[in-house]
Amino acid sequence: MNKISVIGAGSWGTAVSCLLAKKGYEVILWGRSPDLINQMVEERRNPVYLQNLALPDNLELTSDIEQAALGGELIVLAIPSHAMRQILKQFKSALKSNIYFISLTKGLENHSSMTMSQVLQDELGVNSSKIAVLSGPNHAEEVARDVPSATVIAATDSNLAKTLQNIFMAASFRVYTNSDVLGVELGGAIKNVIAVAVGVSDGLGFGDNTKASLMTRGLAEMTRFGIEMGANPFTFSGLSGIGDLIVTCTSRYSRNRFVGEKIGKGEKLKDIVSNMRMVAEGVLTSAALKEMSKNRKVELPICEQVYAVLYENKDPYNCVSDLMKRGATNEVEELINFYETRDKGLV
Amino acid sequence: MNKISVIGAGSWGTAVSCLLAKKGYEVILWGRSPDLINQMVEERRNPVYLQNLALPDNLELTSDIEQAALGGELIVLAIPSHAMRQILKQFKSALKSNIYFISLTKGLENHSSMTMSQVLQDELGVNSSKIAVLSGPNHAEEVARDVPSATVIAATDSNLAKTLQNIFMAASFRVYTNSDVLGVELGGAIKNVIAVAVGVSDGLGFGDNTKASLMTRGLAEMTRFGIEMGANPFTFSGLSGIGDLIVTCTSRYSRNRFVGEKIGKGEKLKDIVSNMRMVAEGVLTSAALKEMSKNRKVELPICEQVYAVLYENKDPYNCVSDLMKRGATNEVEELINFYETRDKGLV
Repeated sequence: MNKISVIGAGSWGTAVSCLLAKKGYEVILWGRSPDLINQMVEERRNPVYLQNLALPDNLELTSDIEQAALGGELIVLAIPSHAMRQILKQFKSALKSNIYFISLTKGLENHSSMTMSQVLQDELGVNSSKIAVLSGPNHAEEVARDVPSATVIAATDSNLAKTLQNIFMAASFRVYTNSDVLGVELGGAIKNVIAVAVGVSDGLGFGDNTKASLMTRGLAEMTRFGIEMGANPFTFSGLSGIGDLIVTCTSRYSRNRFVGEKIGKGEKLKDIVSNMRMVAEGVLTSAALKEMSKNRKVELPICEQVYAVLYENKDPYNCVSDLMKRGATNEVEELINFYETRDKGLV
Repeated sequence: MNKISVIGAGSWGTAVSCLLAKKGYEVILWGRSPDLINQMVEERRNPVYLQNLALPDNLELTSDIEQAALGGELIVLAIPSHAMRQILKQFKSALKSNIYFISLTKGLENHSSMTMSQVLQDELGVNSSKIAVLSGPNHAEEVARDVPSATVIAATDSNLAKTLQNIFMAASFRVYTNSDVLGVELGGAIKNVIAVAVGVSDGLGFGDNTKASLMTRGLAEMTRFGIEMGANPFTFSGLSGIGDLIVTCTSRYSRNRFVGEKIGKGEKLKDIVSNMRMVAEGVLTSAALKEMSKNRKVELPICEQVYAVLYENKDPYNCVSDLMKRGATNEVEELINFYETRDKGLV
């Protein structure tokens, strides 16, 4: 896999294509806007994202998606989740056989609630053994500056995971593998809802104790839901679960935490959203989880309160106090019971 | 258990004794210094810690440890770990039978590397079924201000855990139970070493990615060590594990993170320690863990680097880059293998 196509010239796609090109791979980076791509060709920088990052000489650029898709033995997807299916449709007819895919995109598809690897399988008809996902506590801007970072690549085929681990591993970018694709993807989606809750707590002026408790109980919630869906509980305690949750909840830049903070300060969702260029994923994901948890009868108390505050005008203060007043429980018993009664293997 | 003795009038002992007294329990709080206690009796405040917290009228105060120990059906220990055994010796002869204990103290005993509940058993000859521990992401100052907080009480006897859960539960203080006393105590000790590592990373000017990765891999390390010692792996993903780790690593006030930060900025341990009133627990715990991991052949790469930077003058930058250069691994396989090959139950 020497030829790599990176689809998406946002901050993450740009950072990752530079990382791979610097390692000597033949990388072609696709961006939707011909103007932007032309400017990048001329200036050898991305004028919108990571302006200080010099594009390596060997990084090819294109706004022709078929050209991009034809070039790669490995296709790296770094586009927003809401655009995934529509962009796949644009290049699926140009695909050669025997291509591998790695999704860097977090979040669930609206309405279908599919993860991105599921969308790939569904739309392209690709076998799951050809698909990997990469996720972790990775601000693109820090990866671009060679700040020490770690991430996880998951694939059901362990050889594919190891091959991709070698491809992406760099001096300041440490890659772990995992076989639990679903768990890695669910963590990357659910953490956005927990980040909204943490933002609400910040907006209400609560403290570090509240924040750490919400994150920890958020992890328990993610894990419980993940087990129900067939994921490995340990995955949520890894880089794509708690790792990403930590970086999202402690970052001033997280859109999801930001929406929560505004809500906690008394603003209304429609006013907040109308001032944002992009919708915060956690807003949509909380609705998807509400539906899924009802169907599957899994308790997701934090997600439920986030849904209530976003969509049902519930007073944010009451959300937190309702969380505090729940029945007294055992911290791990529920996980263990859940796990054991379903008799699922750990992998 | 209506009569409760709280041993230790530091910030945590003061906050917890007020919480219990406000709930109507007959609480007597012991502090070592007669002057301090007299001042507290007069002013109905603790002049050293949590000065804004009014002591409830029904909170009794004493500097006579035998009086304190005689009064309680439940003895709450809120003293530093290095003082635990010596203080137990002072009142063991005054103890009535049929007394219960709950330790709020984190850390391992120097030299013996015992947890606090083990010290209690060893020194007082009390049966483990009478001992509980409380731990979680709890800044005393926030609990004193009724900021929503959560914690965990662990006891091998689940009835004791539930009784204590009822005693400590308050509107802004949510208590979970757990049966894994050892796991709860190990989390509270090891998190201090990981906090030193996170401080080193901060001192070197690394980013949020690095911090979240160190915390996540620190959790993996805690869990691996805990399984080896016989703890439940899920405990470390709970409030006393990752919860407390989050609050410690993101707080500007943590002594352990502070020591690490100074080291990362190039200062030497002996200079840092000579300027501190109290030694940071993580400094001693890293030495204890180094020894224990060698004896038990468990890999603790972060703790090992913390030991090297503190005691062997290793360059902090090289510590982080050595962590990044370790062999490529699977994120969860090691935990699963560890778990399965030892064939331990989940509780």
